[in-house]
Amino acid sequence: MGLLAAGIGAGIVAIAAGLGIGMIGKAATESIARQPEASGDIRGAMLLTSVFIEGVALFCAVICALIIFLG
Amino acid sequence: MGLLAAGIGAGIVAIAAGLGIGMIGKAATESIARQPEASGDIRGAMLLTSVFIEGVALFCAVICALIIFLG
Amino acid sequence: MGLLAAGIGAGIVAIAAGLGIGMIGKAATESIARQPEASGDIRGAMLLTSVFIEGVALFCAVICALIIFLG
Amino acid sequence: MGLLAAGIGAGIVAIAAGLGIGMIGKAATESIARQPEASGDIRGAMLLTSVFIEGVALFCAVICALIIFLG
Amino acid sequence: MGLLAAGIGAGIVAIAAGLGIGMIGKAATESIARQPEASGDIRGAMLLTSVFIEGVALFCAVICALIIFLG
Repeated sequence: MGLLAAGIGAGIVAIAAGLGIGMIGKAATESIARQPEASGDIRGAMLLTSVFIEGVALFCAVICALIIFLG
Repeated sequence: MGLLAAGIGAGIVAIAAGLGIGMIGKAATESIARQPEASGDIRGAMLLTSVFIEGVALFCAVICALIIFLG
Repeated sequence: MGLLAAGIGAGIVAIAAGLGIGMIGKAATESIARQPEASGDIRGAMLLTSVFIEGVALFCAVICALIIFLG
Repeated sequence: MGLLAAGIGAGIVAIAAGLGIGMIGKAATESIARQPEASGDIRGAMLLTSVFIEGVALFCAVICALIIFLG
Repeated sequence: MGLLAAGIGAGIVAIAAGLGIGMIGKAATESIARQPEASGDIRGAMLLTSVFIEGVALFCAVICALIIFLG
């Protein structure tokens, strides 16, 4: 049961990061196309939010890995 | 049970990367078409967010591979 | 159980690549139609993101193949 | 169990290729109608992304065929 | 179990080809209606992508037929 949990959990974690960062990247590239002179500010906001999602996703992925070794 | 977990998990991880990077690529090509002179900035934002998703997805895929060998 | 996992997993992996690369290809052809003179930059962005998705998808498909042989 | 896996897996793989390449083909025909003079570039982008999807789909279909013979 | 698998699999394969080629055919007819003078290029793109989908779908249908004879 623990292994099933780890596998499905890792998949859902990846979906979370994929959709979240994908949305940000989509908006960032479209925003740079609309306002090229603001690309520095846009890139800063993009990086900050992507790193937040990445942090939570890696933390949750580590939890899934822990389930395999300790479960 | 572990094998079922690894198979479904790997599939969901691939969906995550597919949808996430697909969104970014879609937005990037359309943005370059709207502002060809900003293609350098757009490509930078595209690469950065794609690599974030790729990182989480590969990490989660490794978790699924671990389930096969350790499960 | 392992065979069921490999079959369903391979199917979901294919959906992932299909939808992701499909989105990118759709956007790329439409973008080239809107800005034919930027087709080089658009093709570059299209290729880069497609290869990212292809990489994760093949990695996950190999996981599914491993399930058959090791499971 | 293996036969059920191969059947459902093959079906999902076909959906993947159908939807993905269908999206690309739809966009390509509409794009050529909007910019007939760019049809060479559009056909190139269409072919490249279709072949990526075809590659993953055939790889996954081979996995499903392996299940029948080895399962 | 094998017969159930072949039946479900064949059904999903037919859905896949139906949706995919349907999308392309719909777009092709509408595109030719908008640009009748580009009908040659449009027909070429339509044929090429339809053949890709047909290829994967026939391969998957053969897998379903194999399940009946070998299962």
